[in-house]
Amino acid sequence: MMKRSESQLTFLSIEQAARLLRRKEVSPIELVDEALARIERWSPELHVFLTVLAERARGQAKRVEREMRRGNARGPLQGIPVSLKDNFWTRGIRTTAGSKILADFVPQEDSDVAAALARAGAILLGKTNLHEFAYGITGENPHYGSSRNPWAPERISGGSSGGSTVAVATGMGFASLGTDTGGSIRIPAALCGIVGLKPTYGLVSNEGVVPLGVSFDHVGPLARSVADACIVLEAIAGKYPRGETRPSYRTLRKNRPRKFRLGWPKDFFFERVNLEIQAAIESAAKNFETFGARIEEVPLAHLPDSVDRASNLVVAEASYFHESHGYYPSRSEDYGDDVRGHLEWGHNLRAVDYLGGIEARRLVQGDFDAALERVDAILAPTSPIPAPRIGESQIRVAGDAERETTVRAELLRMTRPSNLTGLPAISIPCGFTQDGLPIGLQLIGRRWGEAQLLAIALAYEEATDWHNRHPNLS
Amino acid sequence: MMKRSESQLTFLSIEQAARLLRRKEVSPIELVDEALARIERWSPELHVFLTVLAERARGQAKRVEREMRRGNARGPLQGIPVSLKDNFWTRGIRTTAGSKILADFVPQEDSDVAAALARAGAILLGKTNLHEFAYGITGENPHYGSSRNPWAPERISGGSSGGSTVAVATGMGFASLGTDTGGSIRIPAALCGIVGLKPTYGLVSNEGVVPLGVSFDHVGPLARSVADACIVLEAIAGKYPRGETRPSYRTLRKNRPRKFRLGWPKDFFFERVNLEIQAAIESAAKNFETFGARIEEVPLAHLPDSVDRASNLVVAEASYFHESHGYYPSRSEDYGDDVRGHLEWGHNLRAVDYLGGIEARRLVQGDFDAALERVDAILAPTSPIPAPRIGESQIRVAGDAERETTVRAELLRMTRPSNLTGLPAISIPCGFTQDGLPIGLQLIGRRWGEAQLLAIALAYEEATDWHNRHPNLS
Repeated sequence: MMKRSESQLTFLSIEQAARLLRRKEVSPIELVDEALARIERWSPELHVFLTVLAERARGQAKRVEREMRRGNARGPLQGIPVSLKDNFWTRGIRTTAGSKILADFVPQEDSDVAAALARAGAILLGKTNLHEFAYGITGENPHYGSSRNPWAPERISGGSSGGSTVAVATGMGFASLGTDTGGSIRIPAALCGIVGLKPTYGLVSNEGVVPLGVSFDHVGPLARSVADACIVLEAIAGKYPRGETRPSYRTLRKNRPRKFRLGWPKDFFFERVNLEIQAAIESAAKNFETFGARIEEVPLAHLPDSVDRASNLVVAEASYFHESHGYYPSRSEDYGDDVRGHLEWGHNLRAVDYLGGIEARRLVQGDFDAALERVDAILAPTSPIPAPRIGESQIRVAGDAERETTVRAELLRMTRPSNLTGLPAISIPCGFTQDGLPIGLQLIGRRWGEAQLLAIALAYEEATDWHNRHPNLS
Repeated sequence: MMKRSESQLTFLSIEQAARLLRRKEVSPIELVDEALARIERWSPELHVFLTVLAERARGQAKRVEREMRRGNARGPLQGIPVSLKDNFWTRGIRTTAGSKILADFVPQEDSDVAAALARAGAILLGKTNLHEFAYGITGENPHYGSSRNPWAPERISGGSSGGSTVAVATGMGFASLGTDTGGSIRIPAALCGIVGLKPTYGLVSNEGVVPLGVSFDHVGPLARSVADACIVLEAIAGKYPRGETRPSYRTLRKNRPRKFRLGWPKDFFFERVNLEIQAAIESAAKNFETFGARIEEVPLAHLPDSVDRASNLVVAEASYFHESHGYYPSRSEDYGDDVRGHLEWGHNLRAVDYLGGIEARRLVQGDFDAALERVDAILAPTSPIPAPRIGESQIRVAGDAERETTVRAELLRMTRPSNLTGLPAISIPCGFTQDGLPIGLQLIGRRWGEAQLLAIALAYEEATDWHNRHPNLS
């Protein structure tokens, strides 16, 4: 655990910090300085930030402070230091996407979400490390160093939004934005013990985000609590279709669900799961029952086969981006081995197999639509394994002693379905292994159902204390 | 011209025939018998029908007659003999799709549109010849013989809906249904001098249609006049989105447009066109101006390059169907050379190129959307060439003496864009070459804008007499 003697300002909730800022009990510059001190102390070791914007952040903090003195109130993110994964375009600030190819790329425009956070008054601390081009789930990066798990630095943070996740987990700011194409927000959130939300596809703008697979890319918040995630989502969300409820952190606690149904998709999500994780999720389910949940089994008949077939889609879309931009194969040697391998796979993929993926995706969507007519949310592990060691690529999952599988396949297994369906999914902390590694609980909600999904997640969070534990870096 | 001494009952308009039926001046069985007599006399030579349902049609005619005697009125198609291209599933009736592979296929269900025509009281004469699996634009078929142009039997009818078109052009029934994936309704209509309508994508159900490229397949009517096409469309159309006008043959004449704008897309549609066809379209444009049209040039900047790139999409979708059904490559030798070649192309197509096609399709859609904000419809040739000879595969287009091109590419050139955009497009007769070959005028309308498109087409038809000429088969 983080030593109590250290300043804990940047471990406050956003609501708490906003209250202190409003009352002038703390200034934006103090928050920024504390965050920067942590970055300076720990980022080089944990490979968290690729670009630190110390002077720019201090300047922004001073401007926000003056603005607040003039009584110009922008909402709870005003004066709150945050970070952005380095695949979000930032005007005048290099945006590497974790790659050698874009190492010197300085966008002329902000991504829509960078602009939205600035409008909300959030202060940008810097750009965080990621898996190269967001094309991997471990956060290992051959060009900038692998982001490390703050609970066990010899282990991966998970990725691709590894730097953003570690920044939030270690108080280098209050929140961050990540992208999630196959689990890249939820997986690192689970492995590092924080909250990660992948909203409904299309809710948050992808404009100015370096794409991985355009029809699977989701922008979403990484935060230390459900309410904090909600605050960030409110700042970046686009319009909801008429008739859908826009989530609001002000009403989140009031709208606590009394009675709700949670789906337990035994066949898919509970095959081959680390036994400690299995136990933690089962315990969470019991906990849910104590405050109004009815758990029922739901079938997801086309998983996992259809998910595997549909994975062609992302691979093809990624290769299309890299080929149509002239990066691959002409700069093949500038990629890390894993990303180059994926791009080659995509390069050789047949159109007919892509169309098979489209068909498979439709089957997966049908399964989830049917399940979510019966239940309000689906309960599952976020990851079937706790954080593996850096460099580890093959793994044996407890409960399945017979078969060795890849770290990549295991980490993606539980999260990928929601990228195919576009349904909102959140990972929240729900325990630790005996070795002290965080465990994440995944809740998958209805399309445009973030308000309800966050309310269910908050109910669990309020009944538990997992989200209040922070890694001890001293 | 058809000899006047012959019975001309099946050359009446559907409205005229419906009036005679209503007044009991003619019976459904008389119409059926005349159509069957023509089929018997000419179909073997012109390769029009693959399956003739003589007894079934007579039985249906008798039932309809009894029904009409009881005063049970179903609308203008009641008692009208029609045909169906042989890629529409018909319950208990073999549906070959013009292929050897499905030569013995007998569906257990009707296609949605076959059922819709039956509900409207239309009488099914039989199933018509087509390019194998609708995968070609000439109507040549190595398994069942090539449908011949009734204006010049040594020439192609055009395809893929060749049999349907020739049936309608020669009075073997009043109308037929075809499918149009790249021009397969409009091209034969143009080459054989009748009306062919490809409705807005999604308006008419594809359920129970042997697919070619699912996101490009359109079902639509072949008829001898705009009003007849409208009557058939009304019987098969699904729902229009709220706010859009459903076409109605009853109001078509009343809603004659007074003032309207027609787009003249000079760059694309008038490059490399047979000079007689060019002159006929220019003359049609002048004619339009005499009754209220203002003609203005519209740019379509991304054609033809983007159309060519997007053609990957159809090819991939076609191969996906044939591979996922186990027809290709396992029964490779059962295909004609041309179709086998296309399937091989699709088999080897890369997913990345498919995605390039998606991007190109978006550009084409953008071009047409912009043009159709300025004008009510776009005016163009349906085909840049008149009907080529059967067996001809290379062609020189007048006005482009330098370059030899393929019959396939030329025939598809003007029609394919509307399959990419999904916009409604109609071909109507607008003249003849000096050799007596029909010329088709194409009008492309706004999405869901069939009512307006048909009204514009009808205004032209009423100002001209081209649709009243019929081929002389004696």
